[in-house]
Amino acid sequence: METVKDPNVMREKIQKARAESRVVGFVPTMGFFHEGHLQLMRRARSECDIVVVSLFVNPTQFGAGEDFEDYPRDFERDKQMAEKEGVDFLFAPEVEDMYPEGFSTFVEVEGLSKIMCGKYRPGHFRGVATVVTKLFNIVPAHKAYFGQKDAQQLAIIRRMVTDLNIPIEIVGVVTVREPDGLAMSSRNIYLTPEERKAATILYRALKTAVEMIEKGEKDASIIREEMKKLISEEPLVSLEYIEICDNIYLKPLQALSGKVLIALAARVGKARLIDNMLFDLG
Amino acid sequence: METVKDPNVMREKIQKARAESRVVGFVPTMGFFHEGHLQLMRRARSECDIVVVSLFVNPTQFGAGEDFEDYPRDFERDKQMAEKEGVDFLFAPEVEDMYPEGFSTFVEVEGLSKIMCGKYRPGHFRGVATVVTKLFNIVPAHKAYFGQKDAQQLAIIRRMVTDLNIPIEIVGVVTVREPDGLAMSSRNIYLTPEERKAATILYRALKTAVEMIEKGEKDASIIREEMKKLISEEPLVSLEYIEICDNIYLKPLQALSGKVLIALAARVGKARLIDNMLFDLG
Repeated sequence: METVKDPNVMREKIQKARAESRVVGFVPTMGFFHEGHLQLMRRARSECDIVVVSLFVNPTQFGAGEDFEDYPRDFERDKQMAEKEGVDFLFAPEVEDMYPEGFSTFVEVEGLSKIMCGKYRPGHFRGVATVVTKLFNIVPAHKAYFGQKDAQQLAIIRRMVTDLNIPIEIVGVVTVREPDGLAMSSRNIYLTPEERKAATILYRALKTAVEMIEKGEKDASIIREEMKKLISEEPLVSLEYIEICDNIYLKPLQALSGKVLIALAARVGKARLIDNMLFDLG
Repeated sequence: METVKDPNVMREKIQKARAESRVVGFVPTMGFFHEGHLQLMRRARSECDIVVVSLFVNPTQFGAGEDFEDYPRDFERDKQMAEKEGVDFLFAPEVEDMYPEGFSTFVEVEGLSKIMCGKYRPGHFRGVATVVTKLFNIVPAHKAYFGQKDAQQLAIIRRMVTDLNIPIEIVGVVTVREPDGLAMSSRNIYLTPEERKAATILYRALKTAVEMIEKGEKDASIIREEMKKLISEEPLVSLEYIEICDNIYLKPLQALSGKVLIALAARVGKARLIDNMLFDLG
């Protein structure tokens, strides 16, 4: 595995690989790898000739007072983990190379960026859309892999790729969970043992929704109320939202049909956690 | 010359040309070609193996009450002119293929988009940056050619290409003028004979600035006042702004040095006209 810091060098390597007809897969990350990241790398490894992982804690997607400074980082550990997964290139640029002086261009996916997590993290998805556009130009891959855990991010990136005619295929990869159901996240490290235990209520609420749907419940408000009630019983967990919507436009649904996303966000101690489930009700 | 309407077909053709190591030059236009457009095509023709011209009157860069509907169009004439210049591909998409239902992603170059013409045309440069990003993804050329007449647009596109790591070289091409100095523009067709004559004051004002600078004047306010005075003597011309600034950040200058842009915009009858001159004072 080769570590590359310079965006221009990175692009040249990928252009060379493409010129040699190699299929390039790309996994953009903020590092501090867990099993979820590794699944993305494995999927890319199984589908592509060349696998590129980017590791960049992107300042423009953190708001004032958010955890940019504290975001967990462990470059040496990440490097070893990526190497072990057979990654070909680890792209790890410096902030000043991604955002040099005078930087002032932003990509915004309107509508989708303002709802759900966007309400609680203004500017977050603008930062995501901007850095992902940059990364797709630096790593002009055939396919890019993102976790389904970040369902809204995935919807926004798909929308952006379509709208801006970016020539890349976006692959969503199913959420990896801890044995007790908690979705894997680099931010789980913020949780105290008690909070860690309490946080499982989010998964249990989603499972309750699954069970209700399996029993035939189609009314989104009834499902949401049941989930809210359950989560409210856990004092360490402070719910931000539960949204029941389609997975493309993220439009709230009343009667469930088609592809349905149930997404939620909550604060647990210092951590802001998100989770979701996706169903195809046909 | 081949006319292509479908963005995906267009991209495939360019990707094929690139895979065959052909150098691709791209001239994005809104059509209704004049000598200025033809110069861009000739420059591209002289530097590249494959020349692509896009012809798309982009609705997102026109504000409410602007001339999107009235903007001059003559596809058959444009086609013949491009063919005669040895253009290989004319990319002429439909609005609904560029902005399908649900479109909601925009590219904004902050700062540069809000000043000068941006003050008078809110949203204009957002529309430009967005469509140019799309076009660069549809026509992944090595070089793209833009007229220096649209100096602010050129500065914004250069900034955007740098900021978003778009792998294309931007070439600015000198303004082509009518024999009496009026900068060529598709919008000159809006002018009545009287207005057409009056419009030359803009060039004469710029020439006055050149003369003052050549005589050693370094004070931007003195130059601007002289230009304003001259233009105010022409009742058919209503000045919007004169800006004396650097050509990268478009930061107003007091004492002239380095690369200096003198740019102006004015209304003449139905037409909004822009013009500028660029000096290198070392």
